[in-house]
Amino acid sequence: MRFVLIALCAFATCSPAIADNLPGFDAAGSAAQRELEEEFDASLSAADQRTWMRRLAAKPHHVGSKAGKENADYIASLFESWGYDVELAEYRILLPTPATRELELVAPTQFTASLTEDSLPEDPSTAVRDELLPPYNAFSIDGDIEGELVFVNYGIPEDYELLERYGIDVKGKIAIAKYGRSWRGIKPKLAAEKGAIGTILYSDPGDDGYGRGDVYPNGPFKHASAVQRGSVMDMPTYPGDVLTPGRGATAKARRLPLTKATTLTRIPVLPISQRDALPLLSAMGGDAVPPEWRGALPITYHFGPGPARVRMKLKFNWETVSAYNVIARMEGEHSPDQWVIRGNHHDGWNHGAADPISGLVALMSEAKAVGMLAKSGKRPGRTIIYAAWDAEEPGLIGSTEWAEHHADSLKEHAVAYLNTDGNSRGFVRIGGSHTLERFFDRVTQDVIDPQTGATVKARRRAQLLVNASNDGERKEANRDTLRISPLGSGSDYTPFLQHLGIASANISFGGEGPDGSYHTLYDTEQHFTTWRDPGLEYGVTLSKVAGRATLRLANAALLPFEFEGLADNVALYAKEIEKLAADMREQTTRRNRYLDDGLFKLALDPKKTLGPPVAETPVPFFNFAPLQNALQDLQTAAAAYGKALESGATPSQSINELLYTSERLLTRDAGLNGRPWYRHHLYAPGFYTGYGVKTLPGVREAIEQRDYDAVSHEIDTVAKILNDIAMRVSNLEKLLGS
Amino acid sequence: MRFVLIALCAFATCSPAIADNLPGFDAAGSAAQRELEEEFDASLSAADQRTWMRRLAAKPHHVGSKAGKENADYIASLFESWGYDVELAEYRILLPTPATRELELVAPTQFTASLTEDSLPEDPSTAVRDELLPPYNAFSIDGDIEGELVFVNYGIPEDYELLERYGIDVKGKIAIAKYGRSWRGIKPKLAAEKGAIGTILYSDPGDDGYGRGDVYPNGPFKHASAVQRGSVMDMPTYPGDVLTPGRGATAKARRLPLTKATTLTRIPVLPISQRDALPLLSAMGGDAVPPEWRGALPITYHFGPGPARVRMKLKFNWETVSAYNVIARMEGEHSPDQWVIRGNHHDGWNHGAADPISGLVALMSEAKAVGMLAKSGKRPGRTIIYAAWDAEEPGLIGSTEWAEHHADSLKEHAVAYLNTDGNSRGFVRIGGSHTLERFFDRVTQDVIDPQTGATVKARRRAQLLVNASNDGERKEANRDTLRISPLGSGSDYTPFLQHLGIASANISFGGEGPDGSYHTLYDTEQHFTTWRDPGLEYGVTLSKVAGRATLRLANAALLPFEFEGLADNVALYAKEIEKLAADMREQTTRRNRYLDDGLFKLALDPKKTLGPPVAETPVPFFNFAPLQNALQDLQTAAAAYGKALESGATPSQSINELLYTSERLLTRDAGLNGRPWYRHHLYAPGFYTGYGVKTLPGVREAIEQRDYDAVSHEIDTVAKILNDIAMRVSNLEKLLGS
Repeated sequence: MRFVLIALCAFATCSPAIADNLPGFDAAGSAAQRELEEEFDASLSAADQRTWMRRLAAKPHHVGSKAGKENADYIASLFESWGYDVELAEYRILLPTPATRELELVAPTQFTASLTEDSLPEDPSTAVRDELLPPYNAFSIDGDIEGELVFVNYGIPEDYELLERYGIDVKGKIAIAKYGRSWRGIKPKLAAEKGAIGTILYSDPGDDGYGRGDVYPNGPFKHASAVQRGSVMDMPTYPGDVLTPGRGATAKARRLPLTKATTLTRIPVLPISQRDALPLLSAMGGDAVPPEWRGALPITYHFGPGPARVRMKLKFNWETVSAYNVIARMEGEHSPDQWVIRGNHHDGWNHGAADPISGLVALMSEAKAVGMLAKSGKRPGRTIIYAAWDAEEPGLIGSTEWAEHHADSLKEHAVAYLNTDGNSRGFVRIGGSHTLERFFDRVTQDVIDPQTGATVKARRRAQLLVNASNDGERKEANRDTLRISPLGSGSDYTPFLQHLGIASANISFGGEGPDGSYHTLYDTEQHFTTWRDPGLEYGVTLSKVAGRATLRLANAALLPFEFEGLADNVALYAKEIEKLAADMREQTTRRNRYLDDGLFKLALDPKKTLGPPVAETPVPFFNFAPLQNALQDLQTAAAAYGKALESGATPSQSINELLYTSERLLTRDAGLNGRPWYRHHLYAPGFYTGYGVKTLPGVREAIEQRDYDAVSHEIDTVAKILNDIAMRVSNLEKLLGS
Repeated sequence: MRFVLIALCAFATCSPAIADNLPGFDAAGSAAQRELEEEFDASLSAADQRTWMRRLAAKPHHVGSKAGKENADYIASLFESWGYDVELAEYRILLPTPATRELELVAPTQFTASLTEDSLPEDPSTAVRDELLPPYNAFSIDGDIEGELVFVNYGIPEDYELLERYGIDVKGKIAIAKYGRSWRGIKPKLAAEKGAIGTILYSDPGDDGYGRGDVYPNGPFKHASAVQRGSVMDMPTYPGDVLTPGRGATAKARRLPLTKATTLTRIPVLPISQRDALPLLSAMGGDAVPPEWRGALPITYHFGPGPARVRMKLKFNWETVSAYNVIARMEGEHSPDQWVIRGNHHDGWNHGAADPISGLVALMSEAKAVGMLAKSGKRPGRTIIYAAWDAEEPGLIGSTEWAEHHADSLKEHAVAYLNTDGNSRGFVRIGGSHTLERFFDRVTQDVIDPQTGATVKARRRAQLLVNASNDGERKEANRDTLRISPLGSGSDYTPFLQHLGIASANISFGGEGPDGSYHTLYDTEQHFTTWRDPGLEYGVTLSKVAGRATLRLANAALLPFEFEGLADNVALYAKEIEKLAADMREQTTRRNRYLDDGLFKLALDPKKTLGPPVAETPVPFFNFAPLQNALQDLQTAAAAYGKALESGATPSQSINELLYTSERLLTRDAGLNGRPWYRHHLYAPGFYTGYGVKTLPGVREAIEQRDYDAVSHEIDTVAKILNDIAMRVSNLEKLLGS
């Protein structure tokens, strides 16, 4: 029980009167809410989740499939039975599916890739292959190409810097890249920018396979024949239907001609298994790669180019299909126009037991429990919308089209968007808007970990402490409020957070149920319940965390947004960026000096190909003062609001709209430089990392990409945004104090 | 030429008058010495080295073989032809050679290890296998055992700590360990201490094989059938003949009965190839190992124990053989009783082109050139002794027996011992006594790198700078005098330095000619001249460095020992040890607190075997003041001596004996705790690392091994030693000043 006691006191400033109250609730409200949550918990059932998973993950059910539509109908019928107003929101979206996939090694030896995953007798569900989409990368263009292979490691920018030092050019070649270290779509994007004519992606067993542990069915890790499918649509430019950026893809929506869609790849790309990759990589020549590029196949890895030469032929059916989002609404008791949205997608690349069904069944448990509360007269104060999205896998399409379609009303009514996208066993992981950091910290103090009996926060802190390797990490692990991560992309929160400016979060458990089945035929119920969350204990725990978050947001008298957490995290990002600039400056200066002094020539082996790096323009000093000043104002305002909160003043109801729309102030209609769809100026997926987040992306990416002239404008934009939100927070403080 | 200019000024304090002089020479002496060195250089010949290598590495020539004796005779005849007094110093030593070697997997599947290396058509010399010793570990005991396998990673202390956390005990089992991270003999030593009944060593391709690059004959790296032979005698206890510790193994020497020899292994041990290891490791079960334990074989590595069960049968011929050291003496002109000794061994495990012949032929070039100088009337001032040692491979036996045999006269006459043991291409590497650090720094300023035309010092500094990853490393790389490494063990300097207290150094080039042939059948002339030092350019460069060092030591009016470099390095070690204690204290306290707080239980997966670490006794604070005070005195005395040197005072000849015997003051007759043979208190091979050096070993190992009660006594011992040498240095300063 020790942890619970610590936890109660760890919230905010530890004033006992406040600490006992839930954020946004007074004493009576807190007591009532706690009672409600107990009742909520009692309705959660691992058996339910198992039943639903068995049904929803029985067979492949991608968007556009018969099974996908059946799943949507089944989910809708359950929501209806639980007392929701349910809509099947249909969008007409472009979905390429494979017609021809051929890959052959034509020289110096011959080999035809199987491009097929094995059915396993130990898991009969892997033989259920009606409507199975074979391994492919959605939104690759068609192509029929032949060329020499170049091994590009993970195919990320630093890899091309090293290739250049080896004098290796991918122009006119086919790049073969390992999955990992970036979102997959970055790999063909960069390869194309560098002049490659095609890209092959494969899962190296060192990252994902026998190198990590026993492979399925003997363990959770990737089978030798398994292939990670996935979209390569250029989501860092815009996600969603490629033909209707910024608009809902309703049947009648105006559409771009396919030739104008900017988010298709520029070159064909195909994912293959380790088994198909081995003969290709074995046939390569050229210099051996450096140790940090090596994978775990039993060969010496070589850069090429060639002598391995492959022919790759890809043709897709460019068809329009229907995506069905299941939208279930529970009207709020006292504030029906304030919406708390909770979503998880329902489409899977294959059976999709882990991704997405393990998260979806947690959401369904929550919805069922909320429905039961409502039936017994305990309807939520605000409206709760449960969403089961379709077409997330090909590019966050279902959620994006719905968010674009309903953009205006969402901007007006949406309090927050809470996402899950699969689940596993272990430690709680929360990413999201930092105005909700302390809110989530409190939620994680109130949920018990099923394996240890400690709170999920205590377990998470223990993990951080035990794994911390330096004083900085230990200090972070000992922070009263545990940090939540900033969100990049990779799931359905993106349109809400980054396009519409709706405070969002993404929640899951993980770290103890390894993920070797991701986007393969082996993501089955048997895999999931054997290796990841047997008994779905963590499915129920996820329901408790996400359910508490949903219900507290729906019922709090004062919405539990606060700004000290926001200011503290933005200060951290600002510091990181200043350090980034300083480090780049120092490194550039040093490198240029070493080049002038001829040190690389002396340090490098004159008998080898590796040459010195190229000289770079020195990094100028930037004026960070506007950002620092604005941040200081935000910190002051946030502290004042925090103090007002502590005083326990009774809020006027009118304050809530100003609270939940504060996230909108972090966006700008013009969007980010070169990608206007992304409007949030604190969080964005990296243009060259994909899912990986870039905080203060305008400033950070301008520096990273050495676009020095743009930096000062980006600093000014962020400063203005921070000024706006500081002003809003000051107003809120006055309203709260009055 | 820029580097040469910088280099001239980088020596010592950059007073131009002194900087132009070679250390220990006045202006006229420096000029004469420089002229002599030019003449010396002109006699060096890569063609000579190639001829000798071809002959000496034509076939396997281990100690006790016919070929080994022929090589010794051939070397002796050459030395004689160059004008040396040559002696074939014979010792009768115990050498076990394999009679029976059997290794079988008996469960759950069956496999018989081949224990044989392939002859390769691409390198016909690998078919020259008369007298070939098959793969074995010399000084393993006999045994016929059967047991389950446990995978112990590198078999070093930290690996057993992790095994313990997994609840895995090697008691009654056979440990299988990767080569690497420690000297090989540590692995069976530790396994035996932990209760294992046998040890198998293998070379994982991730460390040594296709994981590093193309394998022989397509590249330099380890062939799949290759096995690293090598001694497992407990050399950190004492090296040399196991039956005659501390005494020369002359025919009549008193010998221990074999049962009393403490340096044999306690359990049988056998080295195998990656090819033989694969079926064994594939058959293992139990938990998968953590990522940092993985090798590069295409399997998931498991801890065991079992189900893989092996039978291993080893029987050796425990025979006494003759080791022949070739000792070639060139009497000194003015100080025949002061000896500069220069050695490299001649025995090889197999053909031994790289190890040891590539170093030996450099030594022979030097000896030939010195002989030619002598013939033209330029005999060295002091006596030079060239030594080609036998029986280095089984345990530094030839050199140790000679050093023990002549201990008294060596202590009286030996100025320094300069060792090489093979060579390669790339950057100069010097380890040795720090009284010679500045001396070697100057030598490396005066030798030109054959590939770049810069000095070998400039190349080495460039390498350090370009590869430095932090400010500390950059500061070290920019140090005026480049540091030389402290010496552990692993070659023939050990008896001279660590048993007799003779200032020593070990010199080689490397970093650009990878070593995949070490102690295998593939260490052939073809391998060496294809992949390591084609044209033997670096063989000649090594001759220039070691030759200059030898000749300057032989000819300097004032021996070039100095003590600021020594004091500075000892200060560094003292700081390291204080940090070691502080870090251990902090880690122990933290770990114990986490254990008390139950954090490990929360952070670890309750469904997995890995448990929390054990609590440790808190680390007390130690009184380092005696060490710090003594060090301060040494620093003061060293600075005063340095100043006296700068003044350019003419030395009295009598000072030289006090200079070269100063290293003797760093030893104590009682030796190190538990291993009296090792008498040097600044440098020793680690008791649990083997070759790896431990500086201030008494203090450091007491702390590392948590033997806290011993620390203060060890600090006092080192303090007394530093006091003694400080006093000697003060005396030297007075003598120099007078």
